[in-house]
Amino acid sequence: MSLVGPITVRELAALVGGDVVGDGQIVITHVASLKTARSNDLSFFGAASFADHFKETQAGCILLRSDAVERSPCATMIVVSDPYAAFVKVVTNLVSVPRMAPGARHSTAVIASSAFIHETAAIGPGCVIADGVTIDADVELHANVVVEQRARIGESTVVHANATIASDTVVGVHCIIHSGAVLGSDGFGYIENHDHTYTKIPQIGNVVIGDYVEIGANVTIDRAALGSTVIGSGVKIDNLVQIAHGVVIGDHSAIAAQTGVSGGAVLGKRTRLAGQVGVAGHVSIADDVIVLGQSGVTKSILEPGIYSGSPAQPHMKQLRNEAAVRDILGMHQQIRELADSLGRGETR
Amino acid sequence: MSLVGPITVRELAALVGGDVVGDGQIVITHVASLKTARSNDLSFFGAASFADHFKETQAGCILLRSDAVERSPCATMIVVSDPYAAFVKVVTNLVSVPRMAPGARHSTAVIASSAFIHETAAIGPGCVIADGVTIDADVELHANVVVEQRARIGESTVVHANATIASDTVVGVHCIIHSGAVLGSDGFGYIENHDHTYTKIPQIGNVVIGDYVEIGANVTIDRAALGSTVIGSGVKIDNLVQIAHGVVIGDHSAIAAQTGVSGGAVLGKRTRLAGQVGVAGHVSIADDVIVLGQSGVTKSILEPGIYSGSPAQPHMKQLRNEAAVRDILGMHQQIRELADSLGRGETR
Amino acid sequence: MSLVGPITVRELAALVGGDVVGDGQIVITHVASLKTARSNDLSFFGAASFADHFKETQAGCILLRSDAVERSPCATMIVVSDPYAAFVKVVTNLVSVPRMAPGARHSTAVIASSAFIHETAAIGPGCVIADGVTIDADVELHANVVVEQRARIGESTVVHANATIASDTVVGVHCIIHSGAVLGSDGFGYIENHDHTYTKIPQIGNVVIGDYVEIGANVTIDRAALGSTVIGSGVKIDNLVQIAHGVVIGDHSAIAAQTGVSGGAVLGKRTRLAGQVGVAGHVSIADDVIVLGQSGVTKSILEPGIYSGSPAQPHMKQLRNEAAVRDILGMHQQIRELADSLGRGETR
Repeated sequence: MSLVGPITVRELAALVGGDVVGDGQIVITHVASLKTARSNDLSFFGAASFADHFKETQAGCILLRSDAVERSPCATMIVVSDPYAAFVKVVTNLVSVPRMAPGARHSTAVIASSAFIHETAAIGPGCVIADGVTIDADVELHANVVVEQRARIGESTVVHANATIASDTVVGVHCIIHSGAVLGSDGFGYIENHDHTYTKIPQIGNVVIGDYVEIGANVTIDRAALGSTVIGSGVKIDNLVQIAHGVVIGDHSAIAAQTGVSGGAVLGKRTRLAGQVGVAGHVSIADDVIVLGQSGVTKSILEPGIYSGSPAQPHMKQLRNEAAVRDILGMHQQIRELADSLGRGETR
Repeated sequence: MSLVGPITVRELAALVGGDVVGDGQIVITHVASLKTARSNDLSFFGAASFADHFKETQAGCILLRSDAVERSPCATMIVVSDPYAAFVKVVTNLVSVPRMAPGARHSTAVIASSAFIHETAAIGPGCVIADGVTIDADVELHANVVVEQRARIGESTVVHANATIASDTVVGVHCIIHSGAVLGSDGFGYIENHDHTYTKIPQIGNVVIGDYVEIGANVTIDRAALGSTVIGSGVKIDNLVQIAHGVVIGDHSAIAAQTGVSGGAVLGKRTRLAGQVGVAGHVSIADDVIVLGQSGVTKSILEPGIYSGSPAQPHMKQLRNEAAVRDILGMHQQIRELADSLGRGETR
Repeated sequence: MSLVGPITVRELAALVGGDVVGDGQIVITHVASLKTARSNDLSFFGAASFADHFKETQAGCILLRSDAVERSPCATMIVVSDPYAAFVKVVTNLVSVPRMAPGARHSTAVIASSAFIHETAAIGPGCVIADGVTIDADVELHANVVVEQRARIGESTVVHANATIASDTVVGVHCIIHSGAVLGSDGFGYIENHDHTYTKIPQIGNVVIGDYVEIGANVTIDRAALGSTVIGSGVKIDNLVQIAHGVVIGDHSAIAAQTGVSGGAVLGKRTRLAGQVGVAGHVSIADDVIVLGQSGVTKSILEPGIYSGSPAQPHMKQLRNEAAVRDILGMHQQIRELADSLGRGETR
């Protein structure tokens, strides 16, 4: 991946606060992984699991820790305490992410006359923006995005192709909404009639997304039946996650792919849910809780800590249980031996 | 949320069959939750878990049960036996859900000349309607919906933005299809060749959806290899559910988010599948079966009842198993003690 | 489903290498299931579970094994060793799948001037094709597909309605991408800061899809942080599957619905993952591994074979464990009896 311009190793070292080993005048123009890097590429060696690629890399310059300098196949290195973080810093600062042209309005976009679009917002081809919508400064709507009545999208938020922002949804500033995400679909709420048919409960609430939130591809977030489904600021949501109506997710939480949070659940700040977790309806989760993959949270979690299993329990307890289950066959054997001893009237 | 017009507490009480406590002449204009309600709002107090919000509500009028009247902070109340059902009745009758203008045809919609569109159907911007499609009276297609060849959509059905109705799909009357849903994608069917490569089995069937069905955001329902994948009338399907080819779902079933039903499975009437359930291919499920969250139905269920676990079994049995597993560490201890007793040759 | 033209039973028998029983001059025009077939339909009887439908079928001609001839209600039959495979052969050869007209360019498609579109490729209504894109011969892009900057789509690949192919994605030849699929969304990668907020790691890699790959509806495949997320040739991916950044999937693998593969995992050739499986980040899976439904692969699998459970282990071991758990209540009873015996000082 190309940098915005050529840069010397010495300048890179200054950017990341590292020490040059070798020739600081060498010019770098791209970044790449250890395996694919060539003489004008910067790469990095952090995790031991990449030792094989490290040995054979042809990178022009490599970010590494001091204890790896001796083994390095590269003549030019930058020594840092955290090579990966340093590499991310280079990429963040020197690799340009393409942006839509500010103020672009594609001729095929359909924009209601009562919608407010800030002059610096960019609207892509095929977008549909309904009555009463507000699109703030520096927003980007990529191709075929639909924004329904009265939705509001905050400054510098990017909405990727084919996403749907339903009516009355509020999205904060500096958010990223990935393709196919649906914000503000109806919650799944019915009254079960005496004959076991269902009557739909009108879903008249909305979805409110904080600032600096990232929402993955094909995620679904339902509007509240009444009031708001709330995603706190700084929350990061991976692909194919389901957030049901009336859920509240605390600031700076992270939710991995294919996890589902049922209606009315309230998650604390900095909740971390791994992939394919299920959270039952109306439970509460305290701040600083971590739930491991495929777990099922069936009742409220009141203490910070790590939880796992379905139903979820403190992870250490779950591990003991799993070990015990693995041991059942041994218990069968022990019981048989005890019975045999008794049967023979012996003592040991 | 605003009502269609101002209404007195007395009139509201008549609508829900309740008794007024306080001033029946007070005028209500909106509905809101206990927490956010103000003096012109109607709210309701049903579940004990909302007792804190109830104590502090500033609602102008509140729906409640007779046993809560004494504790109510509101001067004006309507006493009913089921406050939530009464509230839903008010919302259903008096909160207007915005509808597309009947007969609307957005100029950017692409409509094949051989498609039949009823004169009262509304077609939004960016919709694409292919040859041989039938769109019946009062249907709404929101922005960027795609309806492929020969698909039929019944009266008063609403299809939300960015949904895809593939060729030959049949949708009944009064259905709601949410954004990003895909009806009629190819089933996942291959013949595995001797060299372990796959040959695709043409999927030449279709999807048939009954009446009064609701299908959540980003749901996928595959067409049958041959014949039809069938969703019965009155079925409600939550977000991100997968229905494979050839599945049959009985009338008035409800399927919660992220559940998957594998190919050829036949579900009875009034099946309730909670979230993240998996149903294996070609199993049958009897009428009136409930399967709890994250369960895996690996073989047919012949009796009505509640099932859980993976593999799923009757829920009471699963609960006993879970209790037993939690008890394994105790069993280890007991065995150790028995062995010790034997070792010492003692009797108790 | 209609055949491309009428055909005699004798000709059908020649196509599938079968033997005619009855009148080979009979003309067949359609294919259908046992249940719905009429006198001009070909059907097939393979699995015993369809014996009831077989008994009552009115098919004009039926494909069956020799041992079913005696019981057949049809006067005209074609005897083959594998009726289903023979039926698939007929469908593959004689049922025409509708194709878009080669070279079609819908007037509502938005095509960047720097995009290369092969003259035989077909571009549907509402498609958006960005700068630097390459669309090869005989490709079909159905309605409202978005192809972002520099993406490349190989010969004869079909992309269904509302799919999104993000920037720099490379798709091979003869692939099928179903509706709502998102290829090339950002990976889920952050640095956790000391205050537990997150800083996004730029995702500057891409997605590379091999040849003859099928990708289901609403699937999400993230671009690599650096380098490529790679889907090997011949891979088949079912609906709602999540493939995270940096994953590598070996050729001819098959992944069933709602399965998720976490970042950096490397799957061998011919991996078979059933539905709702989770694979943890950075694990490796050997060639020829089968993982059963709802399993959780938490560490690398080094040997071919069948695995199940969460955490996943060899399937035979998992089955023994499940049997042992089912037996725990019996163990409780045994321990009680042993303790009683000891308590009474008896020997048996």
